[in-house]
Amino acid sequence: MSDKVRIALDAMGGDQGPGVVVAGADLALTRHPETEFLFFGNAALIAPLLDARPALKAASKLVHTDIAVRMEDKPSQALRYGRWKSSMWLAIDAVKKGDADVAVSGGNTGALMAMSKFNLKTLPGIERPAIAALWPTLRGESVVLDVGASIGADADHLVDLAVMGAATARILFGHDRPTVGLLNIGVEEAKGLEQVREAGAILREQKLPGLDYHGFVEGNDIGKGTVDVVVTEGFAGNIALKTAEGTARQIGEYLKGAMSRTLSARIGYFFARSAFRQLRELMDPRKANGGVFLGLNGIVIKSHGSADAEGFAAAVELGHGVVRDELLAKITAALGRPGKPARQAVGGVAS
Amino acid sequence: MSDKVRIALDAMGGDQGPGVVVAGADLALTRHPETEFLFFGNAALIAPLLDARPALKAASKLVHTDIAVRMEDKPSQALRYGRWKSSMWLAIDAVKKGDADVAVSGGNTGALMAMSKFNLKTLPGIERPAIAALWPTLRGESVVLDVGASIGADADHLVDLAVMGAATARILFGHDRPTVGLLNIGVEEAKGLEQVREAGAILREQKLPGLDYHGFVEGNDIGKGTVDVVVTEGFAGNIALKTAEGTARQIGEYLKGAMSRTLSARIGYFFARSAFRQLRELMDPRKANGGVFLGLNGIVIKSHGSADAEGFAAAVELGHGVVRDELLAKITAALGRPGKPARQAVGGVAS
Repeated sequence: MSDKVRIALDAMGGDQGPGVVVAGADLALTRHPETEFLFFGNAALIAPLLDARPALKAASKLVHTDIAVRMEDKPSQALRYGRWKSSMWLAIDAVKKGDADVAVSGGNTGALMAMSKFNLKTLPGIERPAIAALWPTLRGESVVLDVGASIGADADHLVDLAVMGAATARILFGHDRPTVGLLNIGVEEAKGLEQVREAGAILREQKLPGLDYHGFVEGNDIGKGTVDVVVTEGFAGNIALKTAEGTARQIGEYLKGAMSRTLSARIGYFFARSAFRQLRELMDPRKANGGVFLGLNGIVIKSHGSADAEGFAAAVELGHGVVRDELLAKITAALGRPGKPARQAVGGVAS
Repeated sequence: MSDKVRIALDAMGGDQGPGVVVAGADLALTRHPETEFLFFGNAALIAPLLDARPALKAASKLVHTDIAVRMEDKPSQALRYGRWKSSMWLAIDAVKKGDADVAVSGGNTGALMAMSKFNLKTLPGIERPAIAALWPTLRGESVVLDVGASIGADADHLVDLAVMGAATARILFGHDRPTVGLLNIGVEEAKGLEQVREAGAILREQKLPGLDYHGFVEGNDIGKGTVDVVVTEGFAGNIALKTAEGTARQIGEYLKGAMSRTLSARIGYFFARSAFRQLRELMDPRKANGGVFLGLNGIVIKSHGSADAEGFAAAVELGHGVVRDELLAKITAALGRPGKPARQAVGGVAS
């Protein structure tokens, strides 16, 4: 790593395309001036946006490509037309070649994971990569993984997730030994899914350095912030994440309705408007934007497809942070735990 | 069924015990005067509570038992000391014997499910019972099942859940053909868990009467109310339910904090207080209290352990509604679908 943090951007990813990506990078640059950007995408669209931002332009390189991955395509389709030459592939490839320290894309999640895996390959001993989400809680934030990179997990994969999640939490939250919980449908040792119980036994017995195993947690513990790291396989994790998003939106709608129904409520809203603004910020998914792909020979950050410039900047800054603190090196070191069965990397991404 | 709706109550269930159960029954009776109650529990505690409520006492019978199932015991332990003689068992047994039309308990969920299964047995062709939750949504309410009776489900069990959930939704919401969605981690047909894809193929091809198959739904669709019935296996369903509860509590805490932080916010809160009351009611878990155990030869309702009298009354009234509308008969009729593989009832409850 050079003194600079070098970030490769898929400028065509996301629902809004280059406008949001360039504006987001610009915001991130003002907060982290030692950043350099590599933009991949349609130069005819991106160059004028950079021209309008001289400071950003001075810190950036632009690589043209005609090919952009579509949001609605399956990973296999995206790989077929987008491998070697799409903006998404080239951003990942910059990490592979050492031209960038991290790649950020707001594009098609399945395609991004498939290309990341195909190009970067999984770390030694890691069978399947994972997506870690930053989840706002009553205590601050927690890392929740896997939120949908793959379906199902045996005990050993859950332990890998615990190790990778703890390394991420150490960097993001600055705790020496983050607390780790296994998501289950009851907190007693005898409850729930067999693989989860097995993973619990391994974590309890092995007392791995760098994490403090808490035990099982339930769905309602995530929002409480009971632990720093919540570990689950990708199916349940994705459903938990999207259910929480849906519930937050639902309550936001209730609140909007309740506050506009009567004159008195509207007066109340007027007086409390700064409190409501604060609440909106706490509930703002843009502030916690960015899933981190873990378990690969390189770090890739997925920004929410619907993020605006502020949201995309949050994802870029997340990438900046994990590079600064050498997440990849720390994960690689932490994964070499004693007694871990040898595995070979295998194919297959949730499609 | 007689003209009366006869409800068996485990008076010792729940965190608060007989006080809440008796007060809840009293509330339900004022709204549904044709109800009769069978109370099971410690007569020394219950009789004075009934004496203080003459109308309820006149509509009730009280059966004494010393034995109450503890909230923290495993199902196997509860069965050992509570079978034949606990208040929970006797309430279920009243349904079995035909002395009551439905049983309601706020006690230990695992024990209640184990005893219900042991005593009532599953319906012909149903391998495992399910817990259906009523979930408040932006469109009203949806039925979500299974929220934790058993872990894992093959395609045919998911189809059974769809059929039972649709029968419940027909009764509770009065739709002829409720819409049914399968919970998955993407809405495309090729996505997600294999069993879910298979169940989708069966539902699409068989075009079962009494339900309108919508396709896959994601976690955020639950709160939106995209479909009337959300079908999933018990592990993911339980995690979704508890994650939503946790998120609602989290936002409630944010809101409370934001509204008390400044004088202006407190003034705003004062003017908008009726709007906040309305919001609290919309978010009130007591209003949607009651999981329905489906797939057994008899209906058992689980009330939330922490419910107060109003919450317990909601569970009792849910029981009243499903009896009035003959849920059990309708489910039994709906389950006899063509092409369904024969199954035998087997043991094993999530413990």
